Amino acid sequence: MGEPMEPPFNTVTLIGVGLLGGSLGLALKQRDLAKTVRGVGRRQSSIDTALENGAIDEGFLALEEAVIGSDLVVICTPANAVPETLDAIRPLCSRDTVVTDVASTKFRICTHMRDAWANPYRFVGSHPMAGSEKHGPENADPDLYNSAVVFIEEENDHADDAYKKVMQLWIGVGAKVIAIDPEIHDQWVARTSHIPHITASALAQLIDNPEEALPFIGNGFRDATRIAEGRPEIWRDICLTNAEAIGAGLRGLITDLESIVRAVDSQDGKALEDFFDRGVQTRRSALDS
Amino acid sequence: MGEPMEPPFNTVTLIGVGLLGGSLGLALKQRDLAKTVRGVGRRQSSIDTALENGAIDEGFLALEEAVIGSDLVVICTPANAVPETLDAIRPLCSRDTVVTDVASTKFRICTHMRDAWANPYRFVGSHPMAGSEKHGPENADPDLYNSAVVFIEEENDHADDAYKKVMQLWIGVGAKVIAIDPEIHDQWVARTSHIPHITASALAQLIDNPEEALPFIGNGFRDATRIAEGRPEIWRDICLTNAEAIGAGLRGLITDLESIVRAVDSQDGKALEDFFDRGVQTRRSALDS
Repeated sequence: MGEPMEPPFNTVTLIGVGLLGGSLGLALKQRDLAKTVRGVGRRQSSIDTALENGAIDEGFLALEEAVIGSDLVVICTPANAVPETLDAIRPLCSRDTVVTDVASTKFRICTHMRDAWANPYRFVGSHPMAGSEKHGPENADPDLYNSAVVFIEEENDHADDAYKKVMQLWIGVGAKVIAIDPEIHDQWVARTSHIPHITASALAQLIDNPEEALPFIGNGFRDATRIAEGRPEIWRDICLTNAEAIGAGLRGLITDLESIVRAVDSQDGKALEDFFDRGVQTRRSALDS
Repeated sequence: MGEPMEPPFNTVTLIGVGLLGGSLGLALKQRDLAKTVRGVGRRQSSIDTALENGAIDEGFLALEEAVIGSDLVVICTPANAVPETLDAIRPLCSRDTVVTDVASTKFRICTHMRDAWANPYRFVGSHPMAGSEKHGPENADPDLYNSAVVFIEEENDHADDAYKKVMQLWIGVGAKVIAIDPEIHDQWVARTSHIPHITASALAQLIDNPEEALPFIGNGFRDATRIAEGRPEIWRDICLTNAEAIGAGLRGLITDLESIVRAVDSQDGKALEDFFDRGVQTRRSALDS
């Protein structure tokens, strides 16, 4: 047997110890990727849960103590809080500190960082496609990122070592890393995640009398609206931070639905069949490609 | 042991031997509900499959021979073909024949029958909430209707024996029968089934480059768009035969989505959070009530 390997990270600081932060802490500890994991929470109760789970070694309510001396900072707050968190930690980071995040929108966050930070950049935005309807540190799962896709922003004036370390973090916890332009990323997630979520919520709200509706509700309705049960404040933040792509995509969807209203009103069977046929073909090619 | 029970139906004629007709034939035979099951198909190959499966005892390409002498006729064609089928069989029915259907829209069909048939009515419209993405007689399943909800139109100038026999049919194959006004039925299925289907198809069509989209597609998108793979000609017919309720519901959905576009554009976090919160609450009460 050789010497035990030195962990690639010395001190990792997780800002936010909910499902995403807590799960990352557990994965870092179980895979021996960090000597020390620090966690910053807004409530002492979240910090206590994360400490009890073993997701973090040290808990903090304030950023200063937690960030100073850390070699990797992962911002695990809701998307809307990432820019202000970047502003708050900038003076606390050393020239060696690497910073990333886990927010599901990237363009505003990456642009905000570029406007305020020095080039070459030591922040590399990340978006792990991981999560669930559950939340909070009590649901943290060391395998949450295992086999998940993690999008990171394309290398573009980043410090070499910072870019490599963010790659190393996600590969270390078992994820598949895909580098992408933040604006293109946001346009895709608007169409594959954010707009479907908004639509699911609007569909659920067509049910104005739940008791009467119950016998009419089959698996189709259940599936089509399942994602509507996500946390409202998370989805509010996603809409606020990806407003352009969501607005553009939703306008396109509304135009399509208006054409269906016209086809229904005018009994245009050909237009309706073509529309449904395109839906079948697109879904098949999207899921089988 | 007593005498074997006499089957409640002598001769049942299924017009259409696809998934719904074939499954009904299998259920009638396996549960000893009919002495003879006749099947009418448009293609000899469908009739042959239904005969081989044991879904029908006798197969016909023409209505006349199949309907004359039958005590129960079940129209298992797509919704759009039901009115013309009703017109075609009216002269073939005796004063004892009972007629029903399985179409998922009811108002136009029931109104059409009332305009042409004599009171008390011997047609009672049915809509079994059963089906799958599969179709054709080769996928017929004797348990398709077992535990399913079947909506039948409220008793309203129907012949007593006709109404009772249609109830007996569905209860006999294991379904749970709910009587409802056809117009109210159509408004509910528009909201719980037809509009979700249209929306799923429109969402799938937001993916204009399937290869690039693939890593962005998670379980949320899969679930939200699953029903988009239904058969285009079935859904065309549903839209054509439930145009008023679908049009009204879709207009309401578009209005809701337009309000979200405005909230996103104006960064109105309160409106967005309230919207998502209503979605969570409505879905929970609809599925748990």
